[in-house]
Amino acid sequence: MNYTNNIKNIKKYVNYSKRGMNLEQDINDTNTYYRNNNIALIYKKPTPITITKVDYPRRSAAKIKEAFFTTPSTLDYNGVYKGKYIDFDVKECKSLTSFPLSNIHNHQIECIKKVIEHKGISFLIIRVTKINENYLLFGEDIIHFIKNNIRKSIPISYIKEKGYLINIKYSPRLDYLKIVNKYMEENYGKI
Amino acid sequence: MNYTNNIKNIKKYVNYSKRGMNLEQDINDTNTYYRNNNIALIYKKPTPITITKVDYPRRSAAKIKEAFFTTPSTLDYNGVYKGKYIDFDVKECKSLTSFPLSNIHNHQIECIKKVIEHKGISFLIIRVTKINENYLLFGEDIIHFIKNNIRKSIPISYIKEKGYLINIKYSPRLDYLKIVNKYMEENYGKI
Repeated sequence: MNYTNNIKNIKKYVNYSKRGMNLEQDINDTNTYYRNNNIALIYKKPTPITITKVDYPRRSAAKIKEAFFTTPSTLDYNGVYKGKYIDFDVKECKSLTSFPLSNIHNHQIECIKKVIEHKGISFLIIRVTKINENYLLFGEDIIHFIKNNIRKSIPISYIKEKGYLINIKYSPRLDYLKIVNKYMEENYGKI
Repeated sequence: MNYTNNIKNIKKYVNYSKRGMNLEQDINDTNTYYRNNNIALIYKKPTPITITKVDYPRRSAAKIKEAFFTTPSTLDYNGVYKGKYIDFDVKECKSLTSFPLSNIHNHQIECIKKVIEHKGISFLIIRVTKINENYLLFGEDIIHFIKNNIRKSIPISYIKEKGYLINIKYSPRLDYLKIVNKYMEENYGKI
Protein backbone atom coordinates (compact mmCIF):
# COMPACT_ATOMS: atom_id res chain seq x y z
CA MET A 1 0.00 0.00 0.00
CA ASN A 2 1.31 3.40 -0.87
CA TYR A 3 -0.56 6.50 0.21
CA THR A 4 -0.01 10.19 0.61
CA ASN A 5 -1.27 11.52 3.92
CA ASN A 6 -1.77 14.78 5.55
CA ILE A 7 0.81 15.14 8.33
CA LYS A 8 -1.96 14.96 10.94
CA ASN A 9 -2.69 11.39 9.90
CA ILE A 10 0.87 10.17 9.94
CA LYS A 11 1.01 9.33 13.63
CA LYS A 12 -1.32 6.35 13.44
CA TYR A 13 1.02 4.67 10.98
CA VAL A 14 4.11 5.44 13.02
CA ASN A 15 3.54 3.87 16.37
CA TYR A 16 7.10 4.19 17.60
CA SER A 17 7.03 7.87 16.66
CA LYS A 18 3.87 8.43 18.68
CA ARG A 19 5.46 6.74 21.69
CA GLY A 20 8.46 9.02 21.32
CA MET A 21 6.24 12.07 21.04
CA ASN A 22 4.95 11.78 24.59
CA LEU A 23 8.32 12.10 26.26
CA GLU A 24 9.39 14.56 23.58
CA GLN A 25 6.27 16.63 24.20
CA ASP A 26 6.95 16.66 27.95
CA ILE A 27 10.51 17.84 27.32
CA ASN A 28 9.38 20.44 24.77
CA ASP A 29 6.83 21.77 27.30
CA THR A 30 9.51 21.81 29.99
CA ASN A 31 11.87 23.76 27.71
CA THR A 32 9.11 26.27 26.91
CA TYR A 33 8.60 26.70 30.67
CA TYR A 34 12.36 27.24 31.12
CA ARG A 35 12.41 29.84 28.34
CA ASN A 36 9.29 31.67 29.52
CA ASN A 37 10.62 31.82 33.07
CA ASN A 38 14.13 32.85 32.03
CA ILE A 39 15.69 29.75 33.52
CA ALA A 40 17.46 28.42 30.45
CA LEU A 41 17.47 28.59 26.65
CA ILE A 42 17.13 25.06 25.36
CA TYR A 43 15.66 24.04 22.00
CA LYS A 44 14.97 20.89 20.07
CA LYS A 45 16.94 21.01 16.86
CA PRO A 46 14.94 20.85 13.63
CA THR A 47 14.73 17.34 12.15
CA PRO A 48 17.47 17.04 9.55
CA ILE A 49 16.22 16.24 6.08
CA THR A 50 17.82 15.89 2.68
CA ILE A 51 15.97 17.86 0.03
CA THR A 52 16.03 16.33 -3.45
CA LYS A 53 13.41 18.38 -5.33
CA VAL A 54 12.19 21.94 -4.93
CA ASP A 55 9.45 23.69 -6.80
CA TYR A 56 10.50 27.27 -7.21
CA PRO A 57 7.86 29.47 -8.83
CA ARG A 58 9.29 32.73 -7.46
CA ARG A 59 11.75 34.06 -4.92
CA SER A 60 9.44 34.17 -1.93
CA ALA A 61 7.73 30.82 -2.37
CA ALA A 62 9.91 27.76 -2.47
CA LYS A 63 8.01 24.53 -2.04
CA ILE A 64 9.85 21.31 -1.24
CA LYS A 65 8.49 18.54 -3.49
CA GLU A 66 10.71 15.66 -2.39
CA ALA A 67 12.84 15.15 0.69
CA PHE A 68 13.93 12.38 3.05
CA PHE A 69 14.55 12.20 6.76
CA THR A 70 18.28 12.03 7.54
CA THR A 71 19.81 10.25 10.52
CA PRO A 72 20.87 12.98 12.93
CA SER A 73 24.58 13.04 13.74
CA THR A 74 24.10 14.95 16.98
CA LEU A 75 21.73 14.80 19.94
CA ASP A 76 18.26 16.32 19.59
CA TYR A 77 18.37 19.07 22.22
CA ASN A 78 20.92 21.72 23.06
CA GLY A 79 21.21 25.12 24.62
CA VAL A 80 22.56 27.17 27.49
CA TYR A 81 21.98 27.06 31.24
CA LYS A 82 23.94 29.45 33.46
CA GLY A 83 26.52 29.90 30.71
CA LYS A 84 27.15 26.17 30.35
CA TYR A 85 26.55 24.20 27.18
CA ILE A 86 23.83 21.54 27.57
CA ASP A 87 23.39 18.76 24.98
CA PHE A 88 21.07 15.79 25.40
CA ASP A 89 18.62 13.36 23.90
CA VAL A 90 15.48 11.61 25.08
CA LYS A 91 14.83 7.89 24.67
CA GLU A 92 11.90 5.67 25.51
CA CYS A 93 12.55 2.17 26.84
CA LYS A 94 9.88 -0.52 26.58
CA SER A 95 11.70 -3.17 28.61
CA LEU A 96 11.59 -3.23 32.42
CA THR A 97 14.98 -4.88 32.66
CA SER A 98 17.35 -3.24 30.17
CA PHE A 99 17.84 -0.39 27.72
CA PRO A 100 19.17 -1.64 24.34
CA LEU A 101 22.22 0.31 23.24
CA SER A 102 20.99 -0.04 19.66
CA ASN A 103 18.66 2.84 20.61
CA ILE A 104 21.68 5.14 20.60
CA HIS A 105 23.44 5.61 17.27
CA ASN A 106 27.22 5.30 17.30
CA HIS A 107 27.66 8.91 16.19
CA GLN A 108 25.44 9.97 19.09
CA ILE A 109 27.77 8.18 21.50
CA GLU A 110 30.68 9.94 19.78
CA CYS A 111 28.79 13.20 20.21
CA ILE A 112 28.34 12.59 23.98
CA LYS A 113 32.09 11.90 24.29
CA LYS A 114 32.95 15.07 22.37
CA VAL A 115 30.61 17.27 24.42
CA ILE A 116 32.22 16.01 27.64
CA GLU A 117 35.68 16.55 26.14
CA HIS A 118 34.76 20.18 25.41
CA LYS A 119 33.47 20.58 28.99
CA GLY A 120 29.79 20.71 28.06
CA ILE A 121 27.13 18.76 29.94
CA SER A 122 25.62 15.79 28.12
CA PHE A 123 23.03 13.25 29.18
CA LEU A 124 20.12 11.07 28.16
CA ILE A 125 16.63 11.26 29.60
CA ILE A 126 15.30 7.70 29.53
CA ARG A 127 11.63 6.93 30.11
CA VAL A 128 10.84 3.40 31.25
CA THR A 129 7.44 3.51 29.61
CA LYS A 130 5.72 0.61 31.40
CA ILE A 131 6.18 2.22 34.81
CA ASN A 132 6.34 5.80 33.47
CA GLU A 133 9.56 6.56 35.32
CA ASN A 134 12.05 9.05 33.87
CA TYR A 135 15.76 8.93 34.58
CA LEU A 136 18.53 11.34 33.73
CA LEU A 137 21.76 9.46 33.04
CA PHE A 138 24.86 11.62 32.58
CA GLY A 139 27.12 11.04 29.58
CA GLU A 140 30.03 10.05 31.82
CA ASP A 141 28.05 7.09 33.20
CA ILE A 142 26.96 6.02 29.71
CA ILE A 143 30.53 6.14 28.36
CA HIS A 144 31.81 4.37 31.50
CA PHE A 145 29.28 1.57 31.00
CA ILE A 146 30.11 1.09 27.32
CA LYS A 147 33.84 1.05 28.04
CA ASN A 148 33.57 -1.57 30.77
CA ASN A 149 30.90 -3.90 29.43
CA ILE A 150 30.50 -6.10 26.41
CA ARG A 151 26.70 -6.29 26.80
CA LYS A 152 24.58 -4.62 24.18
CA SER A 153 22.14 -3.11 26.68
CA ILE A 154 22.30 -1.11 29.89
CA PRO A 155 20.46 -2.84 32.77
CA ILE A 156 17.67 -0.71 34.23
CA SER A 157 19.29 -1.40 37.63
CA TYR A 158 22.40 0.49 36.41
CA ILE A 159 20.23 3.38 35.22
CA LYS A 160 18.45 3.48 38.59
CA GLU A 161 21.75 3.31 40.48
CA LYS A 162 23.76 5.85 38.46
CA GLY A 163 20.91 7.94 37.05
CA TYR A 164 18.57 10.39 38.73
CA LEU A 165 14.81 9.97 38.90
CA ILE A 166 12.95 13.01 37.51
CA ASN A 167 9.57 13.43 39.17
CA ILE A 168 6.67 14.22 36.86
CA LYS A 169 4.98 17.47 37.86
CA TYR A 170 2.31 19.67 36.38
CA SER A 171 4.68 22.48 35.41
CA PRO A 172 7.44 22.12 34.49
CA ARG A 173 6.60 18.56 33.47
CA LEU A 174 10.10 17.11 33.88
CA ASP A 175 12.34 19.47 35.81
CA TYR A 176 15.61 17.93 34.65
CA LEU A 177 17.63 21.12 35.21
CA LYS A 178 17.21 20.62 38.96
CA ILE A 179 19.47 17.59 38.56
CA VAL A 180 21.82 19.39 36.17
CA ASN A 181 22.07 22.23 38.68
CA LYS A 182 23.16 19.84 41.42
CA TYR A 183 25.70 18.29 39.04
CA MET A 184 27.08 21.76 38.25
CA GLU A 185 27.38 22.68 41.92
CA GLU A 186 29.27 19.45 42.59
CA ASN A 187 31.54 19.86 39.57
CA TYR A 188 32.11 23.59 39.31
CA GLY A 189 30.96 24.97 42.67
CA LYS A 190 28.06 27.39 43.12
CA ILE A 191 27.32 29.31 39.91
CA MET B 1 7.60 30.04 -14.93
CA ASN B 2 7.22 27.08 -12.64
CA TYR B 3 9.75 24.31 -12.64
CA THR B 4 10.82 21.44 -10.50
CA ASN B 5 14.56 21.17 -10.17
CA ASN B 6 17.07 18.84 -8.76
CA ILE B 7 18.57 20.52 -5.67
CA LYS B 8 21.93 20.80 -7.45
CA ASN B 9 20.36 23.18 -9.94
CA ILE B 10 18.58 25.39 -7.46
CA LYS B 11 21.50 27.67 -6.71
CA LYS B 12 21.53 29.40 -10.07
CA TYR B 13 17.96 30.58 -9.55
CA VAL B 14 18.60 31.77 -6.01
CA ASN B 15 21.29 34.36 -6.31
CA TYR B 16 21.05 35.67 -2.77
CA SER B 17 21.28 32.11 -1.51
CA LYS B 18 24.43 31.51 -3.51
CA ARG B 19 25.96 34.69 -2.10
CA GLY B 20 25.11 33.47 1.39
CA MET B 21 26.56 30.06 0.69
CA ASN B 22 30.09 31.37 0.30
CA LEU B 23 30.34 32.79 3.79
CA GLU B 24 28.30 29.86 5.09
CA GLN B 25 30.64 27.43 3.35
CA ASP B 26 33.67 29.16 4.86
CA ILE B 27 32.11 28.90 8.33
CA ASN B 28 31.07 25.28 7.80
CA ASP B 29 34.64 24.44 6.70
CA THR B 30 36.01 26.29 9.72
CA ASN B 31 33.68 24.36 12.05
CA THR B 32 34.76 21.07 10.46
CA TYR B 33 38.37 22.10 11.10
CA TYR B 34 37.51 22.92 14.73
CA ARG B 35 35.82 19.54 15.18
CA ASN B 36 38.57 17.54 13.48
CA ASN B 37 41.22 19.28 15.56
CA ASN B 38 39.29 18.97 18.82
CA ILE B 39 39.11 22.72 19.26
CA ALA B 40 35.34 23.13 19.54
CA LEU B 41 32.07 21.40 18.71
CA ILE B 42 30.02 23.82 16.65
CA TYR B 43 27.33 22.87 14.14
CA LYS B 44 24.96 24.59 11.75
CA LYS B 45 21.43 23.73 12.78
CA PRO B 46 19.30 21.94 10.19
CA THR B 47 17.06 24.27 8.19
CA PRO B 48 13.65 24.27 9.85
CA ILE B 49 10.84 23.14 7.57
CA THR B 50 7.14 22.50 7.98
CA ILE B 51 6.10 19.19 6.51
CA THR B 52 2.60 19.07 5.05
CA LYS B 53 2.54 15.79 3.12
CA VAL B 54 4.40 12.54 3.61
CA ASP B 55 4.33 9.48 1.44
CA TYR B 56 4.57 6.51 3.73
CA PRO B 57 4.82 3.18 1.89
CA ARG B 58 6.35 1.35 4.85
CA ARG B 59 7.99 1.97 8.21
CA SER B 60 11.55 2.37 7.02
CA ALA B 61 10.90 4.60 4.03
CA ALA B 62 9.09 7.86 4.66
CA LYS B 63 9.28 10.27 1.76
CA ILE B 64 8.34 13.92 2.25
CA LYS B 65 6.10 15.01 -0.64
CA GLU B 66 5.37 18.60 0.40
CA ALA B 67 7.10 20.90 2.82
CA PHE B 68 7.95 24.58 3.24
CA PHE B 69 10.91 26.45 4.61
CA THR B 70 10.11 28.00 8.00
CA THR B 71 11.63 31.23 9.32
CA PRO B 72 14.16 30.17 11.95
CA SER B 73 13.48 31.55 15.44
CA THR B 74 17.07 31.11 16.57
CA LEU B 75 20.52 31.76 15.15
CA ASP B 76 21.96 29.30 12.65
CA TYR B 77 25.03 28.04 14.50
CA ASN B 78 25.59 26.85 18.03
CA GLY B 79 27.86 24.66 20.08
CA VAL B 80 30.45 24.47 22.79
CA TYR B 81 33.93 25.95 23.15
CA LYS B 82 35.84 25.36 26.38
CA GLY B 83 32.58 24.59 28.18
CA LYS B 84 30.94 27.85 27.12
CA TYR B 85 27.81 28.06 25.01
CA ILE B 86 28.40 29.72 21.62
CA ASP B 87 25.47 30.92 19.46
CA PHE B 88 25.86 32.97 16.29
CA ASP B 89 24.76 33.74 12.78
CA VAL B 90 26.46 34.81 9.57
CA LYS B 91 25.28 37.67 7.37
CA GLU B 92 26.43 39.09 4.09
CA CYS B 93 26.35 42.83 3.52
CA LYS B 94 26.34 44.26 0.01
CA SER B 95 26.68 47.90 1.00
CA LEU B 96 30.04 49.49 1.78
CA THR B 97 28.49 52.01 4.16
CA SER B 98 25.90 50.28 6.32
CA PHE B 99 24.38 46.94 7.32
CA PRO B 100 20.55 47.03 7.16
CA LEU B 101 18.99 45.77 10.40
CA SER B 102 16.22 44.24 8.31
CA ASN B 103 18.77 41.46 7.67
CA ILE B 104 18.31 40.36 11.27
CA HIS B 105 14.85 39.07 12.23
CA ASN B 106 13.34 40.46 15.41
CA HIS B 107 13.26 37.03 17.02
CA GLN B 108 16.96 36.66 16.19
CA ILE B 109 17.68 39.88 18.09
CA GLU B 110 15.58 38.52 20.98
CA CYS B 111 17.63 35.33 20.76
CA ILE B 112 20.92 37.27 21.01
CA LYS B 113 19.58 39.09 24.10
CA LYS B 114 18.49 35.82 25.71
CA VAL B 115 21.82 34.10 25.05
CA ILE B 116 23.67 36.97 26.71
CA GLU B 117 21.20 36.90 29.62
CA HIS B 118 21.98 33.21 30.14
CA LYS B 119 25.73 33.97 30.01
CA GLY B 120 26.32 32.39 26.63
CA ILE B 121 28.41 34.06 23.92
CA SER B 122 26.52 35.42 20.93
CA PHE B 123 27.69 37.30 17.86
CA LEU B 124 27.27 37.91 14.16
CA ILE B 125 29.90 37.32 11.53
CA ILE B 126 29.30 39.97 8.87
CA ARG B 127 30.96 39.80 5.47
CA VAL B 128 31.22 43.08 3.59
CA THR B 129 31.09 41.32 0.25
CA LYS B 130 32.47 44.06 -2.03
CA ILE B 131 35.76 44.22 -0.13
CA ASN B 132 35.58 40.61 1.14
CA GLU B 133 36.21 41.68 4.75
CA ASN B 134 34.73 39.65 7.61
CA TYR B 135 33.92 41.12 11.00
CA LEU B 136 32.84 39.52 14.22
CA LEU B 137 30.45 41.80 16.11
CA PHE B 138 29.51 40.66 19.61
CA GLY B 139 25.85 40.57 20.64
CA GLU B 140 26.44 43.20 23.34
CA ASP B 141 27.52 45.73 20.71
CA ILE B 142 24.56 44.91 18.46
CA ILE B 143 22.07 45.30 21.32
CA HIS B 144 23.82 48.50 22.47
CA PHE B 145 23.53 49.96 18.98
CA ILE B 146 19.84 49.10 18.61
CA LYS B 147 19.05 50.52 22.06
CA ASN B 148 20.78 53.82 21.39
CA ASN B 149 19.94 54.52 17.76
CA ILE B 150 16.82 55.03 15.77
CA ARG B 151 18.51 54.24 12.45
CA LYS B 152 17.51 51.09 10.66
CA SER B 153 21.05 50.14 9.73
CA ILE B 154 24.40 49.77 11.46
CA PRO B 155 27.12 51.91 9.81
CA ILE B 156 30.08 49.85 8.61
CA SER B 157 32.24 52.33 10.56
CA TYR B 158 30.53 51.12 13.78
CA ILE B 159 31.17 47.49 12.79
CA LYS B 160 34.83 48.30 12.07
CA GLU B 161 35.20 50.17 15.35
CA LYS B 162 33.41 47.72 17.68
CA GLY B 163 33.86 44.52 15.69
CA TYR B 164 36.93 42.41 15.06
CA LEU B 165 38.37 41.74 11.62
CA ILE B 166 38.75 38.01 10.91
CA ASN B 167 41.59 37.33 8.51
CA ILE B 168 40.89 34.84 5.73
CA LYS B 169 43.34 31.98 5.83
CA TYR B 170 43.72 28.69 4.03
CA SER B 171 42.78 26.55 7.05
CA PRO B 172 40.82 27.29 9.12
CA ARG B 173 39.20 29.68 6.64
CA LEU B 174 37.82 32.14 9.23
CA ASP B 175 39.37 31.56 12.64
CA TYR B 176 36.65 33.36 14.60
CA LEU B 177 37.33 31.43 17.81
CA LYS B 178 40.63 33.29 18.14
CA ILE B 179 38.54 36.40 18.78
CA VAL B 180 36.08 34.54 21.02
CA ASN B 181 39.02 33.20 23.02
CA LYS B 182 40.32 36.72 23.63
CA TYR B 183 36.82 37.82 24.67
CA MET B 184 36.61 34.90 27.12
CA GLU B 185 40.00 35.72 28.64
CA GLU B 186 38.93 39.32 29.12
CA ASN B 187 35.53 38.41 30.57
CA TYR B 188 36.19 35.23 32.54
CA GLY B 189 39.97 35.10 32.89
CA LYS B 190 42.19 32.35 31.48
CA ILE B 191 40.22 29.14 30.85
